[in-house]
Amino acid sequence: MADAQHLNDPAGDAAAPVTDARRRHDPDVRGFASDNYAGAHPEILAALAVANGGHQSAYGADDYTEHLQTVVRSHFGRRAEAFPVFNGTGANVVALQALTDRWGAVICAESAHIHVDECGAPERVGGLKLLTVPTEDGKLTPELIDRQAFGWDDEHRAMPQVVSLAQNTELGTLYTVEEIRALCDHAHERGMYVHLDGARIANAAAALDVPMRAFTNAAGVDIVSFGGTKNGMLFGEAVIVLNPDAVRHMKHLRKLSMQLASKMRFISVQLEALLAGDLWLRNARHSNAMAQRLAEGVRQVPGVEISYPVQANAVFARLPNEVSERLQKRYRFYFWDEAAGEVRWMCSFDTTEQDVDGFLAALREEMGR
Amino acid sequence: MADAQHLNDPAGDAAAPVTDARRRHDPDVRGFASDNYAGAHPEILAALAVANGGHQSAYGADDYTEHLQTVVRSHFGRRAEAFPVFNGTGANVVALQALTDRWGAVICAESAHIHVDECGAPERVGGLKLLTVPTEDGKLTPELIDRQAFGWDDEHRAMPQVVSLAQNTELGTLYTVEEIRALCDHAHERGMYVHLDGARIANAAAALDVPMRAFTNAAGVDIVSFGGTKNGMLFGEAVIVLNPDAVRHMKHLRKLSMQLASKMRFISVQLEALLAGDLWLRNARHSNAMAQRLAEGVRQVPGVEISYPVQANAVFARLPNEVSERLQKRYRFYFWDEAAGEVRWMCSFDTTEQDVDGFLAALREEMGR
Amino acid sequence: MADAQHLNDPAGDAAAPVTDARRRHDPDVRGFASDNYAGAHPEILAALAVANGGHQSAYGADDYTEHLQTVVRSHFGRRAEAFPVFNGTGANVVALQALTDRWGAVICAESAHIHVDECGAPERVGGLKLLTVPTEDGKLTPELIDRQAFGWDDEHRAMPQVVSLAQNTELGTLYTVEEIRALCDHAHERGMYVHLDGARIANAAAALDVPMRAFTNAAGVDIVSFGGTKNGMLFGEAVIVLNPDAVRHMKHLRKLSMQLASKMRFISVQLEALLAGDLWLRNARHSNAMAQRLAEGVRQVPGVEISYPVQANAVFARLPNEVSERLQKRYRFYFWDEAAGEVRWMCSFDTTEQDVDGFLAALREEMGR
Amino acid sequence: MADAQHLNDPAGDAAAPVTDARRRHDPDVRGFASDNYAGAHPEILAALAVANGGHQSAYGADDYTEHLQTVVRSHFGRRAEAFPVFNGTGANVVALQALTDRWGAVICAESAHIHVDECGAPERVGGLKLLTVPTEDGKLTPELIDRQAFGWDDEHRAMPQVVSLAQNTELGTLYTVEEIRALCDHAHERGMYVHLDGARIANAAAALDVPMRAFTNAAGVDIVSFGGTKNGMLFGEAVIVLNPDAVRHMKHLRKLSMQLASKMRFISVQLEALLAGDLWLRNARHSNAMAQRLAEGVRQVPGVEISYPVQANAVFARLPNEVSERLQKRYRFYFWDEAAGEVRWMCSFDTTEQDVDGFLAALREEMGR
Repeated sequence: MADAQHLNDPAGDAAAPVTDARRRHDPDVRGFASDNYAGAHPEILAALAVANGGHQSAYGADDYTEHLQTVVRSHFGRRAEAFPVFNGTGANVVALQALTDRWGAVICAESAHIHVDECGAPERVGGLKLLTVPTEDGKLTPELIDRQAFGWDDEHRAMPQVVSLAQNTELGTLYTVEEIRALCDHAHERGMYVHLDGARIANAAAALDVPMRAFTNAAGVDIVSFGGTKNGMLFGEAVIVLNPDAVRHMKHLRKLSMQLASKMRFISVQLEALLAGDLWLRNARHSNAMAQRLAEGVRQVPGVEISYPVQANAVFARLPNEVSERLQKRYRFYFWDEAAGEVRWMCSFDTTEQDVDGFLAALREEMGR
Repeated sequence: MADAQHLNDPAGDAAAPVTDARRRHDPDVRGFASDNYAGAHPEILAALAVANGGHQSAYGADDYTEHLQTVVRSHFGRRAEAFPVFNGTGANVVALQALTDRWGAVICAESAHIHVDECGAPERVGGLKLLTVPTEDGKLTPELIDRQAFGWDDEHRAMPQVVSLAQNTELGTLYTVEEIRALCDHAHERGMYVHLDGARIANAAAALDVPMRAFTNAAGVDIVSFGGTKNGMLFGEAVIVLNPDAVRHMKHLRKLSMQLASKMRFISVQLEALLAGDLWLRNARHSNAMAQRLAEGVRQVPGVEISYPVQANAVFARLPNEVSERLQKRYRFYFWDEAAGEVRWMCSFDTTEQDVDGFLAALREEMGR
Repeated sequence: MADAQHLNDPAGDAAAPVTDARRRHDPDVRGFASDNYAGAHPEILAALAVANGGHQSAYGADDYTEHLQTVVRSHFGRRAEAFPVFNGTGANVVALQALTDRWGAVICAESAHIHVDECGAPERVGGLKLLTVPTEDGKLTPELIDRQAFGWDDEHRAMPQVVSLAQNTELGTLYTVEEIRALCDHAHERGMYVHLDGARIANAAAALDVPMRAFTNAAGVDIVSFGGTKNGMLFGEAVIVLNPDAVRHMKHLRKLSMQLASKMRFISVQLEALLAGDLWLRNARHSNAMAQRLAEGVRQVPGVEISYPVQANAVFARLPNEVSERLQKRYRFYFWDEAAGEVRWMCSFDTTEQDVDGFLAALREEMGR
Repeated sequence: MADAQHLNDPAGDAAAPVTDARRRHDPDVRGFASDNYAGAHPEILAALAVANGGHQSAYGADDYTEHLQTVVRSHFGRRAEAFPVFNGTGANVVALQALTDRWGAVICAESAHIHVDECGAPERVGGLKLLTVPTEDGKLTPELIDRQAFGWDDEHRAMPQVVSLAQNTELGTLYTVEEIRALCDHAHERGMYVHLDGARIANAAAALDVPMRAFTNAAGVDIVSFGGTKNGMLFGEAVIVLNPDAVRHMKHLRKLSMQLASKMRFISVQLEALLAGDLWLRNARHSNAMAQRLAEGVRQVPGVEISYPVQANAVFARLPNEVSERLQKRYRFYFWDEAAGEVRWMCSFDTTEQDVDGFLAALREEMGR
């Protein structure tokens, strides 16, 4: 039997394995639509091969997931524990359920991803009530929190139990370490926990030039949704519990939330590849740098206005819609607020200087018509 | 900047990429615990590299997911549509929600994975009521269905709207094509849809030696949870809608169920690698054949009794618990029903003849003590 | 056996029945805290006795619930169907579930009761996502709706399927008939249904001096939460379906939402007592009139400012907090927004002119200190 | 204004108040369909009038609900606390949620009301997983519990956290005090709480001739769904917490479960009327006695077989279906298992000896044809 021969060589090292899958895209084409449009970093793919072959216990009882704890603790302190999950929605909803009772509510910005971009998963899967506050730049403040932080004894009101913030925010802005510490103190004094949606946490650390611990465990954050996918992983995120006293039975919670990977070694080894060395930081610094290069170029183009401080890997800008539409035929990107003429340009780990310069040339050209 | 250089070469073809992840396991060690303990088939890993590089629209608007539809239709008919998801629990809960109203119930075997192995995800995420029936061998019959298929007009009773069956079953048994057709006719006549949990659907097709369509769309099944992970994928399954009239807004349902992959191309290309050629069949035939080899060997060992017909890649057997416990120190496998002295031995795509023969020798040795 | 004798006379008409329950409150003390603080109107209590005695089918298959449909249709048109439920939260959550899919969202005012006063029941019981908009006076407009009415094809966004408005609003304000018609047209043109939270619907009709149908079925509303408790019932509300094409299997939905009364005749006969004659209108006119009397008096008191137009049975006012606190020792009422010095004074069906005049005297006295 | 006059006399004592509701049924017709078909006991109606009039704080902060605690403690011990709710489904789902985490499961009999008669409310509202066991007579045993009580550390399995039993059971059978104590010990030793569905708890106490405390708090039960409606109340049940250490924030839980009555005094005063004296016991003894009279008569009818021990107010019997159908034209009752020719005859607080004797005569007549 021919296949038996083949199957006896599962590592397939002898030669590059063939596959029936066919390349269907141009690997040299990149846009500015989302860091999710990028593929996986080559070191991530290489890590998958490292973890492949042989048998490893499923559902997280494998050597890679075990080792991941050591890696994660080097970043987030000795009490940290990582629970790999599939995606960001899953990480957020598992983390928020872990911190709330059936009657709990979560205070967050009106622009929070958990509120606007998860099709109601927090409500539908977790039965969570979100109490939102409008913000100027996606950032909560103690004063803004207080607009929803009241009524704990009032059974008519969902009980505020968690403050959820995103670092960096969905608008590309950053909290300082001190701001997060103040938010955590404020929340804790009121008996609430703090969740940090770190879909782009590496970009935040790179931009602030501090270790991730500085604005998470050291600042008082209780739980983090750690983002890997947008920073070069194939797929996979992790709920990182920083305050183990705040949670119970995380494994059951992950499982019932349908976020338990059977071959978990393949998420864990990607996280190891990202976090054991400096890949997480290299990728984040690079995408941040590309956004800075882009922002600098944009500032030179009359008629285009940058909307928010460019602090991570996103540039929000306002320009005539008809220009944006012509530009979209040459580069992929999204309108953020079409009524306001606002677009979002995201840089990713694989954005090149040539990509940025080419895009700027196109922008100038289209603005000039 | 050193990393910029590196990042400008995202395909990394020039040489094998390095990674900070380290190998932590012996790739030559395999057991009989689960087909989830196996890694990924080399052709699957190769497919990931094919889809990598450049930018592709996220969330399923990519060239690989688009092409996947053609591949899936070649197996499941021209009305079929595939919705890649992360894992089996997710596939099942998305599929079952798609076929039910808020008041709906699902009839299934007491041994069904959706009932015993998903930590209540169908109930908690989907608000689904499961109406179970005891079976002899994991297989439903029209008569068994009728034990729960009544009371559609009675508001006190959750309304039976779906029959869910597993092919092959959790006990390693198989429905014939005719049996599934009869179940589907029975369900449809009573206004119910049919869901097939195909976590090991390829093993079933291989064992029956028929195309997958024979016992799915051609037999009347409305929706399938297509299993990829257990058959050699890294991760990833698909909800395959066979009867588009039975469902609406599948994309919203997948998203709110937290099963939407941002870099979906990497699930889709694995499914393509599996299904475009015969990898799905080679893998399934191989694991089935290894189970047959194992069963034949076991039958020669006095004192060990095989519990169910060995029809796919699982062997259930009864032997003294103390022998099982000694054997578990040499090979990983699970008790299925410790009180009854029953164990489960699973073969996978990478099980070798030597693995089986070595295990049989160990079994004989431990039985002989 | 003594009790058998007694039990053979279930109607107990011969003499006033005794009870072991003891009066524990002063029936002459009334405040301005809420129309929920009032008891039941005597005609309502009398109706309970009318329906009592003998056996009637449980769960709504009784003669009173059947007749209720005729009564309800005389108010809400021939397509209307009433589903009695226990309370307002139940009515709202059943109604909203009836109009939404698993992926649906409900657009409502930030001040809506369903958002601020139901402990997250819509989210937790119904899995509903609420999309809120800030308003000046509790009233939605087409423009305000449009701030959330978009993105139906975007699976990342909960799909707007319902506009929910309250008549009168939680701030005591009223929509005109034309305003509701415009909202309904706007919603329907966008494929959305309209839910009207009519916890105080009778007060609205009385204030507008139009039949309830004028601003419900005749204006395009699809479903109503009809409020009975605040208007003199002991307990009980009804979901009134005006557009039967918008809903399915209401009975199952009510049951699974735990709003199915076994002895439903006792809710239905209260609704009959309210709606068959003019009790609903008498009660509502009376509480509205008392609020007008109160408002007129308040306007004479220097230093007290009325916050919103007094259009139904609520008066919102601003005055010094220390005055309010002294006044609360004499009459029960609530702060609405303590930070803003705002209080709410509610009149009910049993508020008397003496109550109002006494309260005004106390207010003048406390303001004068 | 005429109505103001009327409204100034809210107690309406002067003369019997009129109402627009009309009597639509024959108060002398009673059947054997359900104790839910009966109306309210006259002493209950009288209690409503006692609590009516004047203003009382809504949502349970009234004098009647406060006093109810004293009454309830006289029955269930000094740690007991009662939370009035609307109906039995509500009581059960609030109680079970109170004892479970998001990952919890409830072990119950296959015949349990929570499993077969609540349209999935436990699953849909509470996200609860029910783990059922078949029983002979509706009663759990420690051995039966053990068929589901395992796997607490296995995240794939919903975690057994509660054993739920009904006293008396849905089949009219009773646990002895010792049996309940043994079940509670068994559950507690395994870290599980015990919920008692007491929809007919008074019938159980009357039949066992022991105080209700004997088989609840004194036997180790942690929480009770106390049934009032079936024993003569108009509507209303109570969750009675016996072990306050097992629960938290019951008020929030009741509210979010849509079981919070605004005019709660009217539930509480009914419970007081039932429990302050012996009405609860009189009613229960009477309905039990009527069932005994019925059973004795049935035993004299050749061809009719009683299915279960008649221990409370239900008689289950087997007889030819055609006889049952003819009999149903004369008296209302339900088939329990039509395939098995089994019917259920329920007695209620208002069943008379004449009712029973008339029914027996009709049964004899129809059997004799």
